[in-house]
Amino acid sequence: MYSFKDKYGEYQSLFEARLSAFFEDLKCEPLILDESLKYSLKSGGKRIRPVLMLASADLLGVKDCGVEDFALALELIHTYSLIHDDLPEMDNDDYRRGRPSNHKVYGAGNAVLAGDGLLNSAYYLLFEKCAEGKLYADAAKFMCGCAGVKGMIAGQSADLYSAEKGIKTADMLDFIVKNKTGKLISAAVAVPAILAGGRYFLELRQFGEDLGRLFQLVDDILDEEGKFDKTGKTVGKDREENKLTYATFYGADQCRVFADILFDKCLGILEGIDGDTQFLKDVVDFVRHREG
Amino acid sequence: MYSFKDKYGEYQSLFEARLSAFFEDLKCEPLILDESLKYSLKSGGKRIRPVLMLASADLLGVKDCGVEDFALALELIHTYSLIHDDLPEMDNDDYRRGRPSNHKVYGAGNAVLAGDGLLNSAYYLLFEKCAEGKLYADAAKFMCGCAGVKGMIAGQSADLYSAEKGIKTADMLDFIVKNKTGKLISAAVAVPAILAGGRYFLELRQFGEDLGRLFQLVDDILDEEGKFDKTGKTVGKDREENKLTYATFYGADQCRVFADILFDKCLGILEGIDGDTQFLKDVVDFVRHREG
Repeated sequence: MYSFKDKYGEYQSLFEARLSAFFEDLKCEPLILDESLKYSLKSGGKRIRPVLMLASADLLGVKDCGVEDFALALELIHTYSLIHDDLPEMDNDDYRRGRPSNHKVYGAGNAVLAGDGLLNSAYYLLFEKCAEGKLYADAAKFMCGCAGVKGMIAGQSADLYSAEKGIKTADMLDFIVKNKTGKLISAAVAVPAILAGGRYFLELRQFGEDLGRLFQLVDDILDEEGKFDKTGKTVGKDREENKLTYATFYGADQCRVFADILFDKCLGILEGIDGDTQFLKDVVDFVRHREG
Repeated sequence: MYSFKDKYGEYQSLFEARLSAFFEDLKCEPLILDESLKYSLKSGGKRIRPVLMLASADLLGVKDCGVEDFALALELIHTYSLIHDDLPEMDNDDYRRGRPSNHKVYGAGNAVLAGDGLLNSAYYLLFEKCAEGKLYADAAKFMCGCAGVKGMIAGQSADLYSAEKGIKTADMLDFIVKNKTGKLISAAVAVPAILAGGRYFLELRQFGEDLGRLFQLVDDILDEEGKFDKTGKTVGKDREENKLTYATFYGADQCRVFADILFDKCLGILEGIDGDTQFLKDVVDFVRHREG
């Protein structure tokens, strides 16, 4: 019988198995490089991006094409972005998921290289896939675009810029969230659509962007009103640090209204897709109603 | 009539034309991201990696397959590595080719992102090529491997590690130079060999690694004994900063002996290749005898 929790766990296990194989292949010198790469990958988290990708592949019947490699590459890209994002010259976060961040353990220089190494390793995996045919190259290129200077990096740059200049506008906020959070989540669900020959590509790409925004809205609400024992984060930190977030800009009540609209929109997109969308619907529900 | 200088200039012009087209395509937001990416690419330098690649493609008769895209990607990768290398937590260099380094102009946070953006953009170009066929994917994968955690990044990590721990051994020095300098130069000449279906791949890969070592030997000698008006660098900086280099480890005289051996070895490899190797021989001569 279907259980969301079990299914989520199944996808996580699939991903962790692929990650273990990657660790075996990796073994690089010097040891500090090897360790610092693995440290941040091992820190766990919900693995929501690879889980979404595996579920989207299941929905579209994409099989035996190594979508796990794309899921792994996506998590490597996400993890590199966290390492660089936590650096003293960026968000200057000493903790990540309750553990010291990469640069606190290995120093900022090694953390820069660990991030570079993860990004490079992600693309090495994808180039290996590219040799197998054009669809793979198309999917890899799309993912690379989502991560790049017109995607996640643009969002990160805008985030830094708005913080430095004190720019707080709705447009800026939307640009940051769409690119910094939305693009990679969009890649998670749209890459399998490319591998499926383009089936539901536009729908899933839009679904990913909306889900990304919903994810960020809830994150921002939790920062205002969450409980420390659930989120593991200091409550009210964004407001204290004068950060531009949905919650600091619109207030938590308005955020809840937006979140409900996006919740409905995400479910509406899934309604338009043939196949078993139950798991993805449950992910939307999980993202909307999570407490940490 | 053949002139080395003219031919070098021709290859440089080909490269600069491709770079200009890239700048047109790039146009990313926010403006500071766009500017910081372009700032370091515009700083010029000898463009030796793309020139080597275009020359190697000529030698092997590789035409009409967009090798300029690979040459551009290689220069993007090289440039990203310089930006991250110059960061305060790495080599902490305030100047690069006589101009303030990226982080001195845009701040360390933006410099991290500029480097990330260049690396990502390099691979985006290559994924576009991958859609055209397997040889392109093989070539892209090879280049990515040269840049990655078993290539340039490993060399950079070892460099940082040896400096932090004060480790000064011949093995460490060889590991650093082979990976940090050698691998990308090797990619420059070996990628066209892959595009040519593997012709002279092993020879050119070896040639690139040896030329990379020769390049580094001469660099290190110039740091000890060069003239500021030719190199644009403070003479004796490596020794003053207690850095592990060929010159500080072996002394300049012994370096000259090594350089002459590598010089002969590089020319010997070229002797074994059918076709017009005159330009590459002249590059070897230029690398050996340059004064800045």
